[in-house]
Amino acid sequence: MDIKVTWQENMRFDGVGPSGHVVNMDTAPAVGGEDSAARPIELMLIALGGCTAMDVISILKKMRTPPQSLEISIHATRAEEHPKSVERAHLAYTAHGVPEDNLRKAVDLSHERYCSVSHSLRTKLETSVEALP
Amino acid sequence: MDIKVTWQENMRFDGVGPSGHVVNMDTAPAVGGEDSAARPIELMLIALGGCTAMDVISILKKMRTPPQSLEISIHATRAEEHPKSVERAHLAYTAHGVPEDNLRKAVDLSHERYCSVSHSLRTKLETSVEALP
Repeated sequence: MDIKVTWQENMRFDGVGPSGHVVNMDTAPAVGGEDSAARPIELMLIALGGCTAMDVISILKKMRTPPQSLEISIHATRAEEHPKSVERAHLAYTAHGVPEDNLRKAVDLSHERYCSVSHSLRTKLETSVEALP
Repeated sequence: MDIKVTWQENMRFDGVGPSGHVVNMDTAPAVGGEDSAARPIELMLIALGGCTAMDVISILKKMRTPPQSLEISIHATRAEEHPKSVERAHLAYTAHGVPEDNLRKAVDLSHERYCSVSHSLRTKLETSVEALP
């Protein structure tokens, strides 16, 4: 997979991969940016959430119990010293209209077998699930 | 750092972190998506490129040799079997108007000390630099 990241101006960068959809990045004014787009470290964690969320929806559909909603809240803990890597992340999955056992199974399958982002990370991951009526 | 990823419809997801900038994700029609936005694995690699690109610009500015342009081409190799994690990535940095030694030093400093995304990845990274007039 080939990705190109190009400097625009100041701290603004564009990235694009095989899909052709351009993604903007920027940083905070305090560190020289203009706050025009998400930060790279946010993108990495959003990618983690999106990857496992897609797995969970696919698996729940295959189980014939698609949820009415799905939300993942990620709480990430970063090292205090540079490079401030993301050492741990807790992913809390909340879904409406799906049996909790199925949600738990889909989340486990995603992290054990399918999610390419979680398997590309060094970050220690923990998960919890909440199935609401 | 807290991130929220929310299922919209089909395979479309939104993610948002502390900056408040919403990032969309989708997948290809072949796997049930609508191709309306970048894939999660692309976002992860774009995040990697953006993170180290911001470092390189900052460091080159501190060296008083800001480049006229900067582009990073990432060639990522994924495992063939699920979870198809990104096992290796080569990052080729091309900049105009900067001494090659400074570019090399900035790239090395980014990966050794500053880039939070590269230090959060399990992926083996290699780099090369090209400084053009």
